[in-house]
Amino acid sequence: MSIPHRMTGVLSPVLTPFKSDLSPDADRFVRHCNWLLENQVGLAVFGTNSEANSLSSEERMDLLDRLVASGANPRMMMPGTGCCSLPETVKLTRHAVNHGCAGVLMLPPFYYKNCSDEGLYRHYSEVIQRIADPRLQIYLYHIPPVAQVPITLGLIERLLKVYPASIAGIKDSSGDWENTKSLLSSFAAAGFHVFAGSETFLLDTLRHGGAGCISATANVNPKKIFQVFAQWKSDQADALQRGVDVTRKVFQSFPMIPAMKYAVSHWSGDPAWNKVRPPLVELTDEQQSSLLANLRASGFEMPGLKAM
Amino acid sequence: MSIPHRMTGVLSPVLTPFKSDLSPDADRFVRHCNWLLENQVGLAVFGTNSEANSLSSEERMDLLDRLVASGANPRMMMPGTGCCSLPETVKLTRHAVNHGCAGVLMLPPFYYKNCSDEGLYRHYSEVIQRIADPRLQIYLYHIPPVAQVPITLGLIERLLKVYPASIAGIKDSSGDWENTKSLLSSFAAAGFHVFAGSETFLLDTLRHGGAGCISATANVNPKKIFQVFAQWKSDQADALQRGVDVTRKVFQSFPMIPAMKYAVSHWSGDPAWNKVRPPLVELTDEQQSSLLANLRASGFEMPGLKAM
Repeated sequence: MSIPHRMTGVLSPVLTPFKSDLSPDADRFVRHCNWLLENQVGLAVFGTNSEANSLSSEERMDLLDRLVASGANPRMMMPGTGCCSLPETVKLTRHAVNHGCAGVLMLPPFYYKNCSDEGLYRHYSEVIQRIADPRLQIYLYHIPPVAQVPITLGLIERLLKVYPASIAGIKDSSGDWENTKSLLSSFAAAGFHVFAGSETFLLDTLRHGGAGCISATANVNPKKIFQVFAQWKSDQADALQRGVDVTRKVFQSFPMIPAMKYAVSHWSGDPAWNKVRPPLVELTDEQQSSLLANLRASGFEMPGLKAM
Repeated sequence: MSIPHRMTGVLSPVLTPFKSDLSPDADRFVRHCNWLLENQVGLAVFGTNSEANSLSSEERMDLLDRLVASGANPRMMMPGTGCCSLPETVKLTRHAVNHGCAGVLMLPPFYYKNCSDEGLYRHYSEVIQRIADPRLQIYLYHIPPVAQVPITLGLIERLLKVYPASIAGIKDSSGDWENTKSLLSSFAAAGFHVFAGSETFLLDTLRHGGAGCISATANVNPKKIFQVFAQWKSDQADALQRGVDVTRKVFQSFPMIPAMKYAVSHWSGDPAWNKVRPPLVELTDEQQSSLLANLRASGFEMPGLKAM
């Protein structure tokens, strides 16, 4: 069995819409996924910006079932499956592999802090051995500002040595370019796919041998971020990068998840999108006005987005 | 309907034993619970030191079913039920309430950091409204070193104003006596039960109007910690407190969970107890020897503990 094709390009941790009773809204979810796919953006469903850690395992599996049933291509999907507990991580990962998803994005177990690399190695190792499927492609998820549990270079080296076929790559959401550079220089040549955690580092990542980015703002700005990826070798690349940086900066100056949901709600004319699950809260009226003003001033638009 | 009797005393976040395949060992779990009850220590099952966040919801509910079926009194139980997601928190809480547990110990949703008190208020409020049961007694769980999401005085004040019958108290695992004192002076007089997160602060907490402690080391030193509680008004109190402090300090100088499991394993003569779930790791041989030497030097023992 050969190693499956590994993903490259731009992926989005897809926003999860909720109904007024806070249950996931599968119809709007599938529709948003399809809009992203039309814009060449892959589906890292159930990421941090998907509020995935506010969903139960059953809710995640139900949404993925609905998405695959809609006809969306699982080879464009990288669901988040890393939970605090081993059995839940295994359950979600097996479900994604059985759907034929191209990969899974796997947080480390994130409740216990200051765990050793040995403990994290045992966790990932146990997951891989329980799944025992050559289709398994794990993208490690390094997001120390939120998870507070880092994926170190030493851990990756150890995992790659024992499980080179299953350890496919990493999403680096450290926000620290030096770390991304170290990952690239240490592991990219061996076929380990490094994704920047934001389009801010997309061009630099590609120029250093990386695979692309998995970025929240790809939910709202997919076409232009994909252009950076598609044209990174052209002489337009730096200008395209500067363009997406402007939009990123606007969204980053607000609480990101509610800001993106409000933008989708506004540009689609669908107020139902403006709903988050606790512990998050929606933007205030003042924040909404300020976000719109800043986005309009930057020439931002969301072409092709429609209400349900 | 009157407000149910609220718990006081010493509780232990009960260690969760695992079999060699890492599945929970319900028989050893029930046996350890009964030993704690014989020593007057209540059962805060599924706490941080129970590795509860490394268990699935199903595993927690199965262990609680088995414990209640064994004849242990649910009025001595305060299961941990706080998860990252609302539906899982509601499911575990309803399960505990339906078993007649005296209370539940509820972590805030702990994945997303820097959430507002408004967002946390909405989370707890939604849980209480969904449970909609006058038997519900929530003990908030403040453990910023691990959860990284604090329970502020402002949040408690707001919750108590709207849900005085359901918000029963707090476990303060901040390790910061000033915070415990503020909780006591702000809310204890209104019937809000403040538990110290360690026996280190047990006597001080009781002297300031608190309810007791919920402490990891009650797993291994239950009898002597209970003596501090039972005799806190006697002139022996300070000497008893100094005694338990010595044992606490020994365990604190090792990774606590594996150290306590090794102690149970050693004193019961049951090697099966010396097993943790990843991301934790067992003590090294050297750590085991050092722990035993330090404990023996302090006169530590675990009377009445037997192998399966």
